[in-house]
Amino acid sequence: MIYLDYAASSPVLPPAADMAVRFMTEEYANPSSIHQAAEESRAVIDRCRRKLADMLGCSPTEIIFTSGGTESNNLAVFGADSGKTRCLITTAIEHESVLRAAEAWESAGEGRSLRVLKPDDRGIVSAEQTEEAVLEALSSRAGREAGEILVSVMTANNELGTIEPIREIGAVCRKYGVLFHTDAVQAFGHIPIDVRECGIGLLSASGHKFGAPKGVGFLYKAGDVPLCPILFGGGQERTLRSGTLNTPGIAGMLAAAEYCETHMAGSAKRIFGLRNAFLREILTALPDTLVNSPLPEGLLTETAADNDDEEFDAASVICLPGHLNLCFPGIEAETLLIHLDLHGVAASAASACASGSLEPSHVLTALPGMTSERANASLRLSFGEFTTEEECAEAAETVIQSVKMLRKLRCGVPL
Amino acid sequence: MIYLDYAASSPVLPPAADMAVRFMTEEYANPSSIHQAAEESRAVIDRCRRKLADMLGCSPTEIIFTSGGTESNNLAVFGADSGKTRCLITTAIEHESVLRAAEAWESAGEGRSLRVLKPDDRGIVSAEQTEEAVLEALSSRAGREAGEILVSVMTANNELGTIEPIREIGAVCRKYGVLFHTDAVQAFGHIPIDVRECGIGLLSASGHKFGAPKGVGFLYKAGDVPLCPILFGGGQERTLRSGTLNTPGIAGMLAAAEYCETHMAGSAKRIFGLRNAFLREILTALPDTLVNSPLPEGLLTETAADNDDEEFDAASVICLPGHLNLCFPGIEAETLLIHLDLHGVAASAASACASGSLEPSHVLTALPGMTSERANASLRLSFGEFTTEEECAEAAETVIQSVKMLRKLRCGVPL
Repeated sequence: MIYLDYAASSPVLPPAADMAVRFMTEEYANPSSIHQAAEESRAVIDRCRRKLADMLGCSPTEIIFTSGGTESNNLAVFGADSGKTRCLITTAIEHESVLRAAEAWESAGEGRSLRVLKPDDRGIVSAEQTEEAVLEALSSRAGREAGEILVSVMTANNELGTIEPIREIGAVCRKYGVLFHTDAVQAFGHIPIDVRECGIGLLSASGHKFGAPKGVGFLYKAGDVPLCPILFGGGQERTLRSGTLNTPGIAGMLAAAEYCETHMAGSAKRIFGLRNAFLREILTALPDTLVNSPLPEGLLTETAADNDDEEFDAASVICLPGHLNLCFPGIEAETLLIHLDLHGVAASAASACASGSLEPSHVLTALPGMTSERANASLRLSFGEFTTEEECAEAAETVIQSVKMLRKLRCGVPL
Repeated sequence: MIYLDYAASSPVLPPAADMAVRFMTEEYANPSSIHQAAEESRAVIDRCRRKLADMLGCSPTEIIFTSGGTESNNLAVFGADSGKTRCLITTAIEHESVLRAAEAWESAGEGRSLRVLKPDDRGIVSAEQTEEAVLEALSSRAGREAGEILVSVMTANNELGTIEPIREIGAVCRKYGVLFHTDAVQAFGHIPIDVRECGIGLLSASGHKFGAPKGVGFLYKAGDVPLCPILFGGGQERTLRSGTLNTPGIAGMLAAAEYCETHMAGSAKRIFGLRNAFLREILTALPDTLVNSPLPEGLLTETAADNDDEEFDAASVICLPGHLNLCFPGIEAETLLIHLDLHGVAASAASACASGSLEPSHVLTALPGMTSERANASLRLSFGEFTTEEECAEAAETVIQSVKMLRKLRCGVPL
């Protein structure tokens, strides 16, 4: 099986798995216990906190461990400003765990309003749009104050790979004194993020999207941002997230974070190259393929392949290196995915979380000019740490043959 | 280090660790993905659901996977009856994740009332007390209906080991049509629980208390009980708990549940014998020791030790086999714990979750006649699957010598 679904979940990195096992079978004490048997558990939690803080440019005390991205996003939406939020500005292409939480938040209290920004055709929500929405909220009849407004814009989109201009959006938020949350589940560990530079008040991340085990994640919360918990109990994480700390998961996340910090630039460059080569194969054989992901201009020309300088630069490109969302006109994506699956290629349509549903992706349909036909003919291939050049070549060939065959079938030509 | 803190957290059973690793490094796909790479992940989730349902006597569709006991308890308190609850009847000796959630629940809405039942000196809350409280709620001026009342009484207490009469409490709840939640975090996997027989509508459990990894647990929810989620997103667990399912944790929980099902009776008997022998050593050397846990009459006589029929029978005893809460009059428990720790015995005062605090245990102080001096002189030793006879003998000797030495110091006699 050629696994091209890294955006849904990634294999746990070997050092991360080793750490997780050690904290299951050897260092199994409850980190809240005061005896020496819990010393290593407490220490690994501190180390992980420091490592994540290093990578984000914040203080270790600003990291709150959670069970994953969904909990982090829910904690941000429901807990931000200790529940004082009255206006939530977000985007139409957020993950379900932001959008559904935002809807539940809106309906849970009187006088709450939710404003959903539309992206452009690349999936980008601009700082200008954000500023307009903030100004509108501030001047509305409801008379919002800056401290009652929460802006939630993701760092990078899970389906398209689009990297949002969070630095500019953060600057807008800072200008008006508005709290800024970003869902960095797809981005953390893959591209550099500096929370201070970007003016981020809250940031969500999930371990299993960067080589740590499932079941662990974190929320960064700037020191001065008030937050109220959504889970109550023993008072762990300075009362902000009760529950026994998941030491195997946190130990795994430490190892994965260390790996990502060391290898981030090299991995991004390698994966970027693989993804681009794969795409060129597809476009050469199937020139009517439409690229939904916002790939750099000139990337797909014949000469780009020979260009030794082909490098991923997170500061200048607007798409994650490993994401590729493609449309094969006239092909039902579900059918193509099943066909690919039978021929050993694992990919997905929309996000894994929504893949039980038959609705077209809410991300794609939010793009201006996107028809439901085009959305339904689109799929996501995502490349990662263990993807090889050979796998890419083989997967490209499988996609090309599958699309050709399905087109023949559609035209009534027997196989 | 002799680990006598199983009630705080237990080592992950080797087959559970193996399963967890397999679902980190080999079967790493997102179980919500539709391709074959996710087939094993989906299958292990189904198998775990069926195994847990088997053990509880319910249907697999009634199991909701969570991140652990705290989340399960919070989901029960906040989500029960889809938020229609107006009166919550619980006990003073519940875990913090029930008590703090109940307080947060009460203050989050108008017209909500919280009634906290006091236990007797064994830590038991009776069916009669529960019935009185239910009748009072039904006849109060606020005019509660049965559907607005939630009773939450734990299956067994984490500090004392006291097993509550949940079958009788469940019968009361059934009689009045009131929803019954039980926090079975300490009990599940250690003593048999049949949710239908006991009239349980909601039951919380945590993996790491029965040999599975930290970071995973579940809530049983009877099919006809309405529940609203506290985490929103991709709609996993029939929309009741969004977030990528923690397949390594769930796979580990499957293996741990299988182990517990097979070995439950034998382990309980063995651990019961070890705990009792340990206690007899202590009482022989330190006869003024007070036993806070409700141990069976006659258990501590000289002859009991020679009694081959000494067996743990969950139906007749009122204390879990591995829990032992003791008071050493005149000794500060914190000092004793540090001393034990330095001499290689890991135990705890109160629960691990609250162990950062200097307050005496809320469980002990809830017992009638319990002075704060006695509570502060009490500690919990908890025995488990890997505890050996040799360890128990050595730990007993360490406790005895430590208590004697601390008493000498207190009397001003130099060491």
